[in-house]
Amino acid sequence: MSGHLTIALDAMGGDLGPEAVVPGAALALQKKKNLRFMMYGDSKKIEPLLAQYPKLAKVSVVHHTDFAVSPHEKPGVALRAGRHSSMRLAINAVSEKQAHCVVSGGNTGALMAMAKMVLKCLPGIERPAIASLLPTVDKEIVMLDLGANLECNSEMLVQFAILGSVYARVVRGHSQPSVGLLNIGSEDAKGHEEIREAAAILGRIQFPGKYAGFIEGNDIPMGTVDVVVTDGFTGNVALKTAEGVSKLMTTVLKKKLKESPLAMFGAFLAMGALKKLKAEMDPRRYNGGMFLGLDGVCVKSHGGMDAFGFSNAILHAAEIADKNFNVRVAAEIAEVMAQEQRIKAEISSEIDEPKEMVS
Amino acid sequence: MSGHLTIALDAMGGDLGPEAVVPGAALALQKKKNLRFMMYGDSKKIEPLLAQYPKLAKVSVVHHTDFAVSPHEKPGVALRAGRHSSMRLAINAVSEKQAHCVVSGGNTGALMAMAKMVLKCLPGIERPAIASLLPTVDKEIVMLDLGANLECNSEMLVQFAILGSVYARVVRGHSQPSVGLLNIGSEDAKGHEEIREAAAILGRIQFPGKYAGFIEGNDIPMGTVDVVVTDGFTGNVALKTAEGVSKLMTTVLKKKLKESPLAMFGAFLAMGALKKLKAEMDPRRYNGGMFLGLDGVCVKSHGGMDAFGFSNAILHAAEIADKNFNVRVAAEIAEVMAQEQRIKAEISSEIDEPKEMVS
Repeated sequence: MSGHLTIALDAMGGDLGPEAVVPGAALALQKKKNLRFMMYGDSKKIEPLLAQYPKLAKVSVVHHTDFAVSPHEKPGVALRAGRHSSMRLAINAVSEKQAHCVVSGGNTGALMAMAKMVLKCLPGIERPAIASLLPTVDKEIVMLDLGANLECNSEMLVQFAILGSVYARVVRGHSQPSVGLLNIGSEDAKGHEEIREAAAILGRIQFPGKYAGFIEGNDIPMGTVDVVVTDGFTGNVALKTAEGVSKLMTTVLKKKLKESPLAMFGAFLAMGALKKLKAEMDPRRYNGGMFLGLDGVCVKSHGGMDAFGFSNAILHAAEIADKNFNVRVAAEIAEVMAQEQRIKAEISSEIDEPKEMVS
Repeated sequence: MSGHLTIALDAMGGDLGPEAVVPGAALALQKKKNLRFMMYGDSKKIEPLLAQYPKLAKVSVVHHTDFAVSPHEKPGVALRAGRHSSMRLAINAVSEKQAHCVVSGGNTGALMAMAKMVLKCLPGIERPAIASLLPTVDKEIVMLDLGANLECNSEMLVQFAILGSVYARVVRGHSQPSVGLLNIGSEDAKGHEEIREAAAILGRIQFPGKYAGFIEGNDIPMGTVDVVVTDGFTGNVALKTAEGVSKLMTTVLKKKLKESPLAMFGAFLAMGALKKLKAEMDPRRYNGGMFLGLDGVCVKSHGGMDAFGFSNAILHAAEIADKNFNVRVAAEIAEVMAQEQRIKAEISSEIDEPKEMVS
């Protein structure tokens, strides 16, 4: 695989299946020439599409399977019954070192369960998190967890902070990314016990980012920090709320612009700017839920994505694999765990020492 | 107080204090002539402002106090030390039936703690929730809890659903408001145990709304339901994220429109439409966190609000008091509790009855 990056694709995942996956791979290949693909799924559907993209066909191998995980299958059922599914075979390709990473637009719960079972977590990571890039006023930020873990203890939140920081540093090139814990106020006493404990740990350890304290919901789109850390329930709701509000604003703007001929003409003149706004906020640009913390690179494309959206999920996966994210994370996690051990040892030795009596 | 609605105002609350409260009251009075005001705070600051609004001055009584709750005071401290504060005296006016409702722009935690202690919860309500109106594509919806309760059990979520439904019905005029539980997916198996249990209860009881199932973050701005129910942590993060994204969109739109002279000219022509968009999404229109579930009407104005924002908090409070919201809620809660008792009794009598043997 020298010089090449091989991507295993679950060609049957997502609402459009191969019709988004194959042209999506073609788009990604245009942007990154060293990609190679292994496509898993129904070859009768994949191959006619592939024939339309000769350059892509040259660098792709199709592995036929009749089975696909259904979008509403429960993760446990998918695990047991999906051994020959396109999703599972694509993940296997990564664990067998045939591919550098896997991308699927299929059932999130099934993908997470299979990826965890097959690829395993990196040493020191309790549970993987789903991370994504988000647009803000002047830069892209990373946010996690977006739905893998409904409830998170303080150690998981700390691990997410490390995962997010290493991602921002290695993949996005921030030398010292700032990390905020999502809360309902910035004062120390605010929020759950878990989050306050996570804040205390992040305040005392050395890690690849810089702990910036508690942040609130409005800080996410304002880009107050480079990495937003939260539990999967809150993260999922916040992300989807943000997507919804962005859509609402566009809808209302369009409606208002159509209400008068003068406004319509104005909008026509400002079309270029409005298109740029739309392009900059386009959720397809930010498509790709990265499963961070696994010993292998796995990226989830949104089920409703078209080829352009799917191509971005491929490019995100390629970037993580290319920059050796997982090796870096493993080293950082080991370092932080050693620090915590030292701190705990210091605390217990202090307790053991007899205290001087105050006369 | 016949025919009049008397509003007790904490004139010292919020970043601007009396400078937002007094002109805010004047604006509210323009829209609703039957308002009367009791203003609590520093009379040396209130009276000169009041002198500028002769109509308001005629219907207002100023009660001087030297004390005000500081914005960062912990609720417990405010409770003990704030007995003579403008906030506390304004709440007392409601419990002593001098006023129909109280509005404050002060410290949320302190206001909630004081209001709960002085006004008490309605019978059957465990904890009050903070509710607010939000703009969506084609209507306003109600969302709660927005920050009073970090963690909520299933019964609290059910109570919030009832509070929100009665509000939507009595105050907003929806005959049978649809109620959604905020979750990370719409399938039954998604989410915390508390939320799944709340869903089961809402599915079997009769209440003033119609249970519409689980909804996701993007459903909030799309207006999928009339009432969104969630815990205070998630609700607070979602609300602030929505505010932030709305601001981000406006900022990026402005930036893009300034990038070319043609776009600027277009924006100039479309100015009316852009202004309408801004007005429709203006957070000041939706200002007023309503503390639902208390035996008395208490509304929190956002601390950063100006006079226009504060006037809307006053009008929301007046509407709730005017339409006898609390009396209706108390009746509905009693009805639901009786239903649950009947259901529990039926279940236990079924268990007691000897089952027929299958031969």
